[in-house]
Amino acid sequence: MKVITFGELMLRLQPYNYLRIVQSESYEATYGGGEANVAVSLSNYGIDTEFVSILPNNEIGQAGVNSLRKYGVGTKFIKRKGDRCGVYFLEKGASQRASKVIYDRKWSSFYFSEPEDYDWDAIFEGADWFHISGITPAVAPALREIAITACRKAKEHGVKVSCDLNYRGKLWTRDEAKETMTKLAKYVDVCIGNEEDASDVFGIKAAGTDIYGGKLSVEGYHSVAKQLMETFGFEKVAITLRTSISASVNKWSALLYDGKEFYQAKEYEINIIDRVGGGDSFSGGLIYSLLNNYSGQDAIEFAVAASCLKHSIEGDYNLVTVDEVTKLVKSGGSGRVQR
Amino acid sequence: MKVITFGELMLRLQPYNYLRIVQSESYEATYGGGEANVAVSLSNYGIDTEFVSILPNNEIGQAGVNSLRKYGVGTKFIKRKGDRCGVYFLEKGASQRASKVIYDRKWSSFYFSEPEDYDWDAIFEGADWFHISGITPAVAPALREIAITACRKAKEHGVKVSCDLNYRGKLWTRDEAKETMTKLAKYVDVCIGNEEDASDVFGIKAAGTDIYGGKLSVEGYHSVAKQLMETFGFEKVAITLRTSISASVNKWSALLYDGKEFYQAKEYEINIIDRVGGGDSFSGGLIYSLLNNYSGQDAIEFAVAASCLKHSIEGDYNLVTVDEVTKLVKSGGSGRVQR
Amino acid sequence: MKVITFGELMLRLQPYNYLRIVQSESYEATYGGGEANVAVSLSNYGIDTEFVSILPNNEIGQAGVNSLRKYGVGTKFIKRKGDRCGVYFLEKGASQRASKVIYDRKWSSFYFSEPEDYDWDAIFEGADWFHISGITPAVAPALREIAITACRKAKEHGVKVSCDLNYRGKLWTRDEAKETMTKLAKYVDVCIGNEEDASDVFGIKAAGTDIYGGKLSVEGYHSVAKQLMETFGFEKVAITLRTSISASVNKWSALLYDGKEFYQAKEYEINIIDRVGGGDSFSGGLIYSLLNNYSGQDAIEFAVAASCLKHSIEGDYNLVTVDEVTKLVKSGGSGRVQR
Amino acid sequence: MKVITFGELMLRLQPYNYLRIVQSESYEATYGGGEANVAVSLSNYGIDTEFVSILPNNEIGQAGVNSLRKYGVGTKFIKRKGDRCGVYFLEKGASQRASKVIYDRKWSSFYFSEPEDYDWDAIFEGADWFHISGITPAVAPALREIAITACRKAKEHGVKVSCDLNYRGKLWTRDEAKETMTKLAKYVDVCIGNEEDASDVFGIKAAGTDIYGGKLSVEGYHSVAKQLMETFGFEKVAITLRTSISASVNKWSALLYDGKEFYQAKEYEINIIDRVGGGDSFSGGLIYSLLNNYSGQDAIEFAVAASCLKHSIEGDYNLVTVDEVTKLVKSGGSGRVQR
Amino acid sequence: MKVITFGELMLRLQPYNYLRIVQSESYEATYGGGEANVAVSLSNYGIDTEFVSILPNNEIGQAGVNSLRKYGVGTKFIKRKGDRCGVYFLEKGASQRASKVIYDRKWSSFYFSEPEDYDWDAIFEGADWFHISGITPAVAPALREIAITACRKAKEHGVKVSCDLNYRGKLWTRDEAKETMTKLAKYVDVCIGNEEDASDVFGIKAAGTDIYGGKLSVEGYHSVAKQLMETFGFEKVAITLRTSISASVNKWSALLYDGKEFYQAKEYEINIIDRVGGGDSFSGGLIYSLLNNYSGQDAIEFAVAASCLKHSIEGDYNLVTVDEVTKLVKSGGSGRVQR
Amino acid sequence: MKVITFGELMLRLQPYNYLRIVQSESYEATYGGGEANVAVSLSNYGIDTEFVSILPNNEIGQAGVNSLRKYGVGTKFIKRKGDRCGVYFLEKGASQRASKVIYDRKWSSFYFSEPEDYDWDAIFEGADWFHISGITPAVAPALREIAITACRKAKEHGVKVSCDLNYRGKLWTRDEAKETMTKLAKYVDVCIGNEEDASDVFGIKAAGTDIYGGKLSVEGYHSVAKQLMETFGFEKVAITLRTSISASVNKWSALLYDGKEFYQAKEYEINIIDRVGGGDSFSGGLIYSLLNNYSGQDAIEFAVAASCLKHSIEGDYNLVTVDEVTKLVKSGGSGRVQR
Repeated sequence: MKVITFGELMLRLQPYNYLRIVQSESYEATYGGGEANVAVSLSNYGIDTEFVSILPNNEIGQAGVNSLRKYGVGTKFIKRKGDRCGVYFLEKGASQRASKVIYDRKWSSFYFSEPEDYDWDAIFEGADWFHISGITPAVAPALREIAITACRKAKEHGVKVSCDLNYRGKLWTRDEAKETMTKLAKYVDVCIGNEEDASDVFGIKAAGTDIYGGKLSVEGYHSVAKQLMETFGFEKVAITLRTSISASVNKWSALLYDGKEFYQAKEYEINIIDRVGGGDSFSGGLIYSLLNNYSGQDAIEFAVAASCLKHSIEGDYNLVTVDEVTKLVKSGGSGRVQR
Repeated sequence: MKVITFGELMLRLQPYNYLRIVQSESYEATYGGGEANVAVSLSNYGIDTEFVSILPNNEIGQAGVNSLRKYGVGTKFIKRKGDRCGVYFLEKGASQRASKVIYDRKWSSFYFSEPEDYDWDAIFEGADWFHISGITPAVAPALREIAITACRKAKEHGVKVSCDLNYRGKLWTRDEAKETMTKLAKYVDVCIGNEEDASDVFGIKAAGTDIYGGKLSVEGYHSVAKQLMETFGFEKVAITLRTSISASVNKWSALLYDGKEFYQAKEYEINIIDRVGGGDSFSGGLIYSLLNNYSGQDAIEFAVAASCLKHSIEGDYNLVTVDEVTKLVKSGGSGRVQR
Repeated sequence: MKVITFGELMLRLQPYNYLRIVQSESYEATYGGGEANVAVSLSNYGIDTEFVSILPNNEIGQAGVNSLRKYGVGTKFIKRKGDRCGVYFLEKGASQRASKVIYDRKWSSFYFSEPEDYDWDAIFEGADWFHISGITPAVAPALREIAITACRKAKEHGVKVSCDLNYRGKLWTRDEAKETMTKLAKYVDVCIGNEEDASDVFGIKAAGTDIYGGKLSVEGYHSVAKQLMETFGFEKVAITLRTSISASVNKWSALLYDGKEFYQAKEYEINIIDRVGGGDSFSGGLIYSLLNNYSGQDAIEFAVAASCLKHSIEGDYNLVTVDEVTKLVKSGGSGRVQR
Repeated sequence: MKVITFGELMLRLQPYNYLRIVQSESYEATYGGGEANVAVSLSNYGIDTEFVSILPNNEIGQAGVNSLRKYGVGTKFIKRKGDRCGVYFLEKGASQRASKVIYDRKWSSFYFSEPEDYDWDAIFEGADWFHISGITPAVAPALREIAITACRKAKEHGVKVSCDLNYRGKLWTRDEAKETMTKLAKYVDVCIGNEEDASDVFGIKAAGTDIYGGKLSVEGYHSVAKQLMETFGFEKVAITLRTSISASVNKWSALLYDGKEFYQAKEYEINIIDRVGGGDSFSGGLIYSLLNNYSGQDAIEFAVAASCLKHSIEGDYNLVTVDEVTKLVKSGGSGRVQR
Repeated sequence: MKVITFGELMLRLQPYNYLRIVQSESYEATYGGGEANVAVSLSNYGIDTEFVSILPNNEIGQAGVNSLRKYGVGTKFIKRKGDRCGVYFLEKGASQRASKVIYDRKWSSFYFSEPEDYDWDAIFEGADWFHISGITPAVAPALREIAITACRKAKEHGVKVSCDLNYRGKLWTRDEAKETMTKLAKYVDVCIGNEEDASDVFGIKAAGTDIYGGKLSVEGYHSVAKQLMETFGFEKVAITLRTSISASVNKWSALLYDGKEFYQAKEYEINIIDRVGGGDSFSGGLIYSLLNNYSGQDAIEFAVAASCLKHSIEGDYNLVTVDEVTKLVKSGGSGRVQR
Repeated sequence: MKVITFGELMLRLQPYNYLRIVQSESYEATYGGGEANVAVSLSNYGIDTEFVSILPNNEIGQAGVNSLRKYGVGTKFIKRKGDRCGVYFLEKGASQRASKVIYDRKWSSFYFSEPEDYDWDAIFEGADWFHISGITPAVAPALREIAITACRKAKEHGVKVSCDLNYRGKLWTRDEAKETMTKLAKYVDVCIGNEEDASDVFGIKAAGTDIYGGKLSVEGYHSVAKQLMETFGFEKVAITLRTSISASVNKWSALLYDGKEFYQAKEYEINIIDRVGGGDSFSGGLIYSLLNNYSGQDAIEFAVAASCLKHSIEGDYNLVTVDEVTKLVKSGGSGRVQR
């Protein structure tokens, strides 16, 4: 099985531990980006992957390529051109102090993507699944059409398409998002998002939910999932459910809707090590379980357990095996030492 | 607006993370001290500040000056003389193991302060507020008179005076503290403390409080505040309320009394990163909100939210902006990522 | 008073903080091993100790010796021969991700122990207590007989013997363990274990306990303790009670049975810094309190408080003083700063 | 005395020690930039300084401001606007492996400078000296005119102007440089450069010099200095003389020409810790010595000794005092411990 | 072009900077091994590579695989079985203190290699070059035959074979080495070694060489090369020439003999960052230049420049590009900053 | 054999690598002090040692005790009283920038030494050698008499006495030094110093020496040695010869005079890692070789080689074995890797 993901890989610069940027004299340097993170997740599950992107032909770009190769992700469709690798600064929050992300990704090599940079026929040859998120078309105006083309091409090649809505208000407006994502949605089989995404991108809302207050209405989420499916005809809709108690503790779950049934996963209360990439690890887990024909309940349990574990791992990438995820699904996560 | 603070700046040496001193082969080196911490808080809120002190004319002293300049605190009233910079070692606790402070501040340049080291008329010219804590007069016998002079001079210049009682049993006895602080109190407008301070310094007690047991009696605190105001004629009394569940988790709140009403702030349950300087950050927040004529409730909410955030920041200094504090007051602190 | 402990000392390699092994580019290097950990605990309580073992005569072995000397443990009975120091890799877990231990201890200098490497008469001269765990005889077939000899010799010298059952399924089978430990048990005065150990080693079970689910049945533990005492005639049996809520939070307590009464200690809810060596620190605390003729209740409270503190300390060794343990027993562990 | 410098401040990201970028998992984060470096040098010598620039109004920009405040540089003329802080990656070379700089400075807040961002009349009020380098006008087309205006305005305010030619081939062509720098040169009093700069910017060449081969022709440098002075009518010309033996060892000296005499400084053989900012520290030293009316020989000795010391200091900034430079001029640099 | 290399990959544990093992509390963790190092060199030059080996199926083995994937080395012929990854400890020397290597590689997964672990026909399909060193057959008795088989199979597949003699006295005796290497040599086309290797393995000696004294006799090396070629009928013989001035400074060169002419490369005086893997980087450079049909002189210059650069790079792997090596060959290595 | 040394142990705080104090945010924390360093040297050579001193009874003092125990030094004569451990800050120099030491040792527990703190009869029981340096009596006025008493008591117990003159101008004047050291010298058998010490302490000078210029006159040193012996009747005089080329490179040798012959050791050119403690490691090496009845030439070669190696080791302590020193004496220090 082979999965293709398409998006931007950024250099992630983070002060060590809980230092604020203004007090830090060094940065931990890793790489990450929504779709790259999904590819790493899948590669760690033993799936063949190719990550499609553009990076500059310098050491900063090379180190990004290396970070993917290290975990077995295919990099032959990463074009090398242009001058800069997108950067994001991450200041990790704690307790009542929220994490903060400062993007410095504009003008990157990927930002200057042109349609001819991507040979979709070659890319999708032999592929089984294609994953993209709402961030990719938001990076630059030219990428909107490219993203739609990618999805269309995937369908033409008989490749399943999943899309994480992932609305980023700093990259485009709600209207721009709606216009592009509506076009893109018609090629999508599996739609992933949270309630905010559905509202921000498509204006689909549900009552009874107060994200900041920590209360989640299951009915509200069901209503959102149903509306998404009815509007766009997705095969499946998955909605992640995060209750943010503080920057240190979150509750985390998700539901899956296949048009007939709602499958609700176990909820985990998580002491957070690093929550960036949590949603991507959910997508990675879900794609894995659907590719392997897990039942609806098993699929959503696997995806939630996988992304629960991600919150305990530093960096964007989810570095867990199928075994570890499965063990968590079964054990419930008491965290005893494995000797 | 300009705020003057007066006290000692110490080199703070702390093993990384949760290492004990006996197992540490390196120390994180920052600087801190009650009144310096208040100045940094205020400078980060955009207030002009001057920190008054004495530091040795060597690199250890210079690094201390630099640590203040870095955050915009005025350093022109820091006299450079003598041989040593006070030091304190901080071993950070966790769970049931308490944090431990070892002072090595005796014989410092500041310890050898003489009255003629300070030109109070020059210092208070154009100033709006003066802050001092009970630590400053406790450092050395000569500093008792100097601290009283400073407060008297501040009043003569029409400068508001705030004082954090901050009793340190390793520096002076309760009797010494009472004698000096009683004299000093008559120049103070805003008195800040916790219940222990009121008891240690002035013998003012309230029933119904068990600090170790985690129960706080609101009535007890009201009684302490009232007694303080009645005895010394303060304009305002603020009392911080800490419930120590463990070295890792504390509850934190405060109340403000203006002689008529009691204003009680929201209580936060905090996963602690660094609690040293928590009280100072409260003073900083309170001075800011009073200088800006916040209402009683808004003032205490700002001060408590500011110091709540301090607990998530490494080092003595509270590195937050007015914006961040205000956002916490409004949101209640769920800690969602700010992208 | 002098205590002898006998076992293997390993180089412990651990990625910093919560990094996984596959993402770590450095290892924190400390040393540890069940019986060495007990010796360090006792040395920190002011007890004379000697650790009996074998280490290679190279720098890796020397650094191990030094790590013990640093904390005052006697090292004159550590023979230097062979080529390798056992190693264990520790990946610290967090939240739902369990800690993981990878042993690389086979073929070590200690593994190749021969009976003539140990002069038990010299070792036990002037000793008051001998401690061993079920790991030592499990390291290699030859060590089974050596361990039994050690215990027998201790008894001949009038030395008290304590044994922590500590079953390690990667080192030997349950049958092998039962055979050896049954022989060894007859020289043991104080038996230490948890419910799993009793079951794994001796097949002694109690109903009503679900370790993963977080429920502990006090009656079950009493039944286990009674069976152990009846079967082997121990003077005292101590059983540690861990409830693993997650890799970040555990509840921790223990009970002591002297054949007449059960003494149950206070239970602590612990935010874990490092739980490896938790059981060893319990043994260390228990030996100290029994050596000093603490009452049954005081003894178990001391042992549990000591090992509660260990969970807040990095590394295998418990670096606390009698004073600190006693303070926790009295205060209940609110973790206020000690200035 | 007050010195104004104008240019860009960049975040400097450098792998620790001698790691290559492709193997580094962290970056040391400091700030630097030609003219900012000169301001720090002078501030450390006790001179009042103001650095004129633009930085984004986020934490990355704030940390840059703080890095200057820390060393006492005035920051009130640093405008805060735009989105990004220029970045440069520095891979430190060793032995035969050259250091490598990767610029990621395009599209920065400073790059988008507009004439109305700078109020030169306010900036030059009370100033004694203005320093700029050839990098500033090279950053963006709009900055060419702004740089010329700055120099013109400085002259109108009676402020001395120094300029370090500093040709950067990655930022503009030789023709562009020549056109702009020729216009700018007419406002310059003190011209600083090396032989390559004179050739790259103005096409002024001297025979007999082989930079890579390690041979320097004194006559050649004299000829270059004379041609510069004759062409542009500078008051003084200073030329730095670097002989690169390897990335680890350089020889370093300079000469000063005042139209009448050539002053040649002592040559130092340097074991390099960090050579970035070496030229800027020379400018800083020269401005200091000229501001203080040092004789020609004393001035060039001070400037060379100052920049010799810079090579032993990590980061762009030269962190030495007048005392330390003077001591090196006198002692010749045997490096004995100062106790 | 595709190159196969066969050997052991070890975890390399090194104290940071120049700390001795007995004072280090952490280890830098990288991976290395003669033939793996050669594969990384070649992969960095753009050559397809496969590294053949055995590693345990745990995280320590996986991190080793990842370290190779990161730099693009093919890992599909790395079998995963057994329990342990070989380890070596490296203490970096300085000045008169020599570097020290402590091997802990016995009993590794690779040590327990069996003939059926390797499918040489599959491995050599489509390969152009096979590289092995004298370390591989020395690891364990069973590996002697396996190594010979590998070379024989390579010849059968028409693959060129290079061998670095690399005698390791801690792994086998001179007699054992001679017996095995004599058999293996008959399949070797390109023989690489230094004078000591030739003497230790084959008893081939040359007069006039004093390695410790820093004098090298060119004639002596020619004589060794000739004897090697005459005895074994190699196509080419390359001899590396190291003059160890101290642990901090070495001179480094090499010669190549093709049976007709001797090609002597430029000698570099190197300030050493890390000299481990220096010989392997020479082999990597030589294989590259021979694969690309460089002339004798160009080939040896490339190989020596490549390995000269290695000495400036931390870790076993040589992380340089063809461009960088070529630039050094041309420039002579003055180490100027590349901006 | 047992050696006693007497002096102060200080906490040594040093910025990492070559950072200046004003730019450092952390300190490497080790311990050191002239006489403690000598004890560690000897302990590493297998000699029994006891270090006599006073340290505070807190964690800072305990960590100092532990640093000695780690390397096997006896600590039973370290009295624990008072409040502070002396501190010294070390900023490591490079190239033309000298290392800088800032002492913060005044008012330490050792500074407040009283005669009754030391039970010399107990201390010298069974001892063979006593070592002290000129620093110990310089620490505080009361220590002058105590130091003289110690030497006198040593002689009474038949213990050999060595003294390193080690003049510290920041601790006492030349006159004070002369007065005390003249009294102390009469108990000394082996006098160690450099030319400056002889001049500073006793006013003994030799012509022809220019320490800063790098030229050393052998005749001058002979004259100094002779004068020392004639004046005080020492059994042996050793003079260390350092030529400081820069902070990075020194030449190092020494001579020994026994009243009849001068023994001059090999001179080493050293690339310095850490030169603090260089003189102490010389004393340690000399005491070892004299205790073992080495010939004059062998003794001085051992002492110089030992201290040559110290320059390659971080921290005050010389961590080398007799084997390593002997190997250097024989090999001449080419620094080849020891595998």
